[in-house]
Amino acid sequence: MKAFMDKDFLLDTDTAKMLYHDYAAKMPIIDYHCHINPQEIAEDRKFENITQVWLGGDHYKWRQMRSNGVEEKYITGDASDREKFQKWAETLEKAIGNPLYHWSHLELQRYFDYYGPLNGETAEEVWNICNAKLAQPDMSARNLVIKSNCTLLCTTDDPIDSLEWHKIIKEDDSFSPQVLPSWRPDKAMYMEKPDFLDYLAKLEAVSEVKIDSFENLMVALKKRMDLFEEVGCKVSDHGLAYVMCAPASAEEVEAIFAKRLTGVMVSAEEEAKFKTAFLVEMGKECHRRGWAMQLHYGVKRDNSKRVFRYFGPDAGVDCISNYTPSAELADFLNLLDETDQLPKTIIYSLNPIDNAAIGTIIGCFQNSTAVGKIQQGSAWWFNDHKPGMIEQMTSLASLGLLGNFVGMLTDSRSFLSYTRHEYFRRILCHLIGTWVENGEYPADEKVLGKMIQGISYNNAKNYFGFDV
Amino acid sequence: MKAFMDKDFLLDTDTAKMLYHDYAAKMPIIDYHCHINPQEIAEDRKFENITQVWLGGDHYKWRQMRSNGVEEKYITGDASDREKFQKWAETLEKAIGNPLYHWSHLELQRYFDYYGPLNGETAEEVWNICNAKLAQPDMSARNLVIKSNCTLLCTTDDPIDSLEWHKIIKEDDSFSPQVLPSWRPDKAMYMEKPDFLDYLAKLEAVSEVKIDSFENLMVALKKRMDLFEEVGCKVSDHGLAYVMCAPASAEEVEAIFAKRLTGVMVSAEEEAKFKTAFLVEMGKECHRRGWAMQLHYGVKRDNSKRVFRYFGPDAGVDCISNYTPSAELADFLNLLDETDQLPKTIIYSLNPIDNAAIGTIIGCFQNSTAVGKIQQGSAWWFNDHKPGMIEQMTSLASLGLLGNFVGMLTDSRSFLSYTRHEYFRRILCHLIGTWVENGEYPADEKVLGKMIQGISYNNAKNYFGFDV
Amino acid sequence: MKAFMDKDFLLDTDTAKMLYHDYAAKMPIIDYHCHINPQEIAEDRKFENITQVWLGGDHYKWRQMRSNGVEEKYITGDASDREKFQKWAETLEKAIGNPLYHWSHLELQRYFDYYGPLNGETAEEVWNICNAKLAQPDMSARNLVIKSNCTLLCTTDDPIDSLEWHKIIKEDDSFSPQVLPSWRPDKAMYMEKPDFLDYLAKLEAVSEVKIDSFENLMVALKKRMDLFEEVGCKVSDHGLAYVMCAPASAEEVEAIFAKRLTGVMVSAEEEAKFKTAFLVEMGKECHRRGWAMQLHYGVKRDNSKRVFRYFGPDAGVDCISNYTPSAELADFLNLLDETDQLPKTIIYSLNPIDNAAIGTIIGCFQNSTAVGKIQQGSAWWFNDHKPGMIEQMTSLASLGLLGNFVGMLTDSRSFLSYTRHEYFRRILCHLIGTWVENGEYPADEKVLGKMIQGISYNNAKNYFGFDV
Repeated sequence: MKAFMDKDFLLDTDTAKMLYHDYAAKMPIIDYHCHINPQEIAEDRKFENITQVWLGGDHYKWRQMRSNGVEEKYITGDASDREKFQKWAETLEKAIGNPLYHWSHLELQRYFDYYGPLNGETAEEVWNICNAKLAQPDMSARNLVIKSNCTLLCTTDDPIDSLEWHKIIKEDDSFSPQVLPSWRPDKAMYMEKPDFLDYLAKLEAVSEVKIDSFENLMVALKKRMDLFEEVGCKVSDHGLAYVMCAPASAEEVEAIFAKRLTGVMVSAEEEAKFKTAFLVEMGKECHRRGWAMQLHYGVKRDNSKRVFRYFGPDAGVDCISNYTPSAELADFLNLLDETDQLPKTIIYSLNPIDNAAIGTIIGCFQNSTAVGKIQQGSAWWFNDHKPGMIEQMTSLASLGLLGNFVGMLTDSRSFLSYTRHEYFRRILCHLIGTWVENGEYPADEKVLGKMIQGISYNNAKNYFGFDV
Repeated sequence: MKAFMDKDFLLDTDTAKMLYHDYAAKMPIIDYHCHINPQEIAEDRKFENITQVWLGGDHYKWRQMRSNGVEEKYITGDASDREKFQKWAETLEKAIGNPLYHWSHLELQRYFDYYGPLNGETAEEVWNICNAKLAQPDMSARNLVIKSNCTLLCTTDDPIDSLEWHKIIKEDDSFSPQVLPSWRPDKAMYMEKPDFLDYLAKLEAVSEVKIDSFENLMVALKKRMDLFEEVGCKVSDHGLAYVMCAPASAEEVEAIFAKRLTGVMVSAEEEAKFKTAFLVEMGKECHRRGWAMQLHYGVKRDNSKRVFRYFGPDAGVDCISNYTPSAELADFLNLLDETDQLPKTIIYSLNPIDNAAIGTIIGCFQNSTAVGKIQQGSAWWFNDHKPGMIEQMTSLASLGLLGNFVGMLTDSRSFLSYTRHEYFRRILCHLIGTWVENGEYPADEKVLGKMIQGISYNNAKNYFGFDV
Repeated sequence: MKAFMDKDFLLDTDTAKMLYHDYAAKMPIIDYHCHINPQEIAEDRKFENITQVWLGGDHYKWRQMRSNGVEEKYITGDASDREKFQKWAETLEKAIGNPLYHWSHLELQRYFDYYGPLNGETAEEVWNICNAKLAQPDMSARNLVIKSNCTLLCTTDDPIDSLEWHKIIKEDDSFSPQVLPSWRPDKAMYMEKPDFLDYLAKLEAVSEVKIDSFENLMVALKKRMDLFEEVGCKVSDHGLAYVMCAPASAEEVEAIFAKRLTGVMVSAEEEAKFKTAFLVEMGKECHRRGWAMQLHYGVKRDNSKRVFRYFGPDAGVDCISNYTPSAELADFLNLLDETDQLPKTIIYSLNPIDNAAIGTIIGCFQNSTAVGKIQQGSAWWFNDHKPGMIEQMTSLASLGLLGNFVGMLTDSRSFLSYTRHEYFRRILCHLIGTWVENGEYPADEKVLGKMIQGISYNNAKNYFGFDV
């Protein structure tokens, strides 16, 4: 029996151990997609206790606590931090096979030097250990980034954001990791939202462009993209129920937008046409700037309206949507490819059953403008666990070139989540080690080591063109 | 090499063996969903031969025999029981990797003390062994329940059922296992069926409520639910092509029902609105009574019309429907959650690719009114096999709390099917043993033993509120 | 650690090794579905170099090269064959976990006696070895078929094909393997194509039937089927986006066809009705002749319109379509079953998530007219890899009788692809060996050996009624 989460955690062959310890573990981290608040880096935030870090905004954990029958007061309510931590510890004990079990214990090991299990009985001890550690200066936001060996991270930012914190960080020579913005213009695309016009007013104000047409909406956005580019942006991100392809004439798109500007809601068909046009323009602009475009889809959000009204979005009541037509995704990519303006693109579906379809679609649009130009993104959100990552990488390998994969991202709000890169790399080395020891690929350390270094770090560096 | 289906069948680690033999195997059985005929328990039915037990009504086996090119006369026709058994034995030999292979041999081992393989050559020997055993008094229906250590089972019952057999069993102190009815009002919901009005007439008669409106349909059904509750019912069951969410006003639902009452068939859209209203009312009523609601869907029935005409339903010609929109399932649950009337709910799709979507949906509606309030049901029907159960439990663990899972049910018509609980428990212990021995969860026997006892028995007991 | 692709490649248990070496490896090959050009057999084509063999028409490899950022001139363009081979070798190195890695190395081992890895550094050596071998007479098309122990292969042929090359091969006593045509009338069904009427004109010419009605289209096709039957055809093949079921009256179908004959394009609904009628007629005709009908679906073709315009079809820009309604597939089969005219049928979806649905549908239409009458086809195209084959066989075994499976086909244009049968058989023996050594099936060599021989060869022989 292997010991519980020891140094060879998930590494079950000699090849896996060699690849992880000699190659993967030594590579720094590029976290090209996260939700860290750049203000917390700029101000070098400290954390009072482990509940603040772990339960302050983590809807992954909230879901599991509700699933364990815990009252909301101990989750997002007014119970004390110590009480909340107790409830979380008691919940975690039941989470066998859940990534939260591994993430939590990796964080306890790497950041708090605690190697035992967290459960209801050990909660008091762990609470004290963590809080003592958090009181030390090396546990500030910046120091956590540095001690995690993260050289570059991309936050997720709205077009109306001033990027002031990014600028401050950039100009501060005392902190060497790069903190770049990502371009996430969803609010300018979600015309079905009641506050769409309010948002446009804000965008109008910051861009100093009158948004009285779709064309001018694009003018405004591109002005903001200039700002993002100045601060180092290299990547856009788009969140969708599904990737749609409803091409319409410029006139029709203008008419739909004009209609919505009057305050009227548009039909689902009109919405699809608008969003298609919106994403095509964004794609072309990404292509022009050499940015990579990320498409995230397969999500249905805010399902419990009660919880949404009580809490707002990101409350842990989202689910997978299984309406994700592969034909529209392929046709959408072709719209951009037709004029040779398809940017580097990374595709993520929240529905793991889309793996094979995506793997075949990306193969249709590859060309010599980039190595691995169209990528399937790493197992995302609900799929970000051991079987999910193994399935995504096995599918990717079966259908394409795993050697060109740009690898892991945390998608996280927390400074402790860099251990998810460790988790990913261990699983990667496990998978490749298994193949090699099964005689399915030559045991050539030079080739394998380079591949592991690539998937861990170098591929992302080269793909996005980061200057690290 | 492990011996063929010996005491450590499917238990490939020391932890798995310990957990199974010391914990799982010792727990009694709650079979909270089956199709056993309560009359057979009340009358303590005896079985003449193994063909009667095995092939009398088992469409799982019929499918495989047809798949082996066996003539219908040897399946459901007028061939002798001995001939039918021979054909089944010859078919089984080809069923490597099929759960029927394991179920059949577990039944031969546990109930007939036969430990060899069943095939064309051993059929005569097995026939004689089984029939000799079946002639003994301890192989009656009641004794099979008792020797299987089953303390409680829930049959599946129609609202018009008098529950007379359940009452007889309940009043008979000589038989201690509880035999409870389950509320399955599908016939009152299937308005698309030609005999819908005939059914309503019967319901009208037994309920003594004139069913001249949707409102009165509900009155009638609730009266029958009172009867079911008196006899101990704790759970409802609903069979659907897919879980739909087509909310309509009370007036509209009444108009649709009134239209159907005239003998006219309604449109698919009207049907969806009626069924949505029907299930919302049933859900609220389950919530009020503290019953758990089971939603079974993803089925397309009676596909070979020739076989259906010859034989009727449940002839082995059903298949998976892959139209199972996750968005409608989430929205349906929200309809009940909106008013805080969502009951404990167990969700089963026949399509195994729905595992992840379901796992994320159940997480949206959990709260402190029950531990594991919304459950994903155990791998069902066509998925009730080793890879299917491993996939369902792995998905459930990855997305939620496996420790709160209410576990296995047989869904069976046979008194020999309790071995499916053994099969499930072995697979459960295999899975958890693998994780523990791989260092993914602490090797803490106390915690693990309690978890195994919970998933095997205690979770279901507590969840349904059974008094055993 | 197992050595790289040695004699026990993929065989990880003693049972697997025994089953493969003593049974599977000794069976000849029936390749009942391929795309080999019969002219190349008739003329006993020789190959100048390995690039001609490997990269001449293999869109599987082209995709991966594009995925590696290789310029099109080195893929399908005017670079030298040596340069193209270099780019392929460099690409292959990154294809860990991809079937092309294994296929390529199996071909190098079996046909060129090269046992090392192919990569950028070894490319020159491998180029020389292969080309020297190809210059030898035993590497001609015919000799490759013979040395692969292939006794029968079915090409894929259009109704207007004269089958002249098949006839020449048949009459040539110096070549004993059978080369039979397969009936692939897709062009007569794809009424949505712009060149549909041109095709009908050609069909009219060769059939000498005036195609002025749907009825006469069928007359023409059946005349051509007579020709195919004379040359030994035993199987039809149909390619579809999805299997549809839109029954219409004979009059309606005639009206749709008449409309299209005027040059007008028909609606999607009309197209579905025409195709349903077309396939029903083809199915009945297959049934009458004792042919097996293959249904291939779940494909979206020619996705990059730029590549399609540059290259035409089969350029490596196809993908999986995930619109594959299981209900329509079941209803379509029932249309033929209703009149007892459902032929032996083999169902392949390109979407691997359809495995379970297909496994349950085939079970609905089995009967005693054939053993394993309705089959799920082997993991196809994008799924033709180790995990894909394991999933397909595991699903098939879980839901039906793996023992009756008709097994592997290459679907290939290349004379070196017979090693895919070896790959399949190794995976089959691995899977069954694992079950046996895990105690899930008796270790009865006689039974297992017969099963392996069946799935490798005998089942296909008996199922199609080949006279080999």
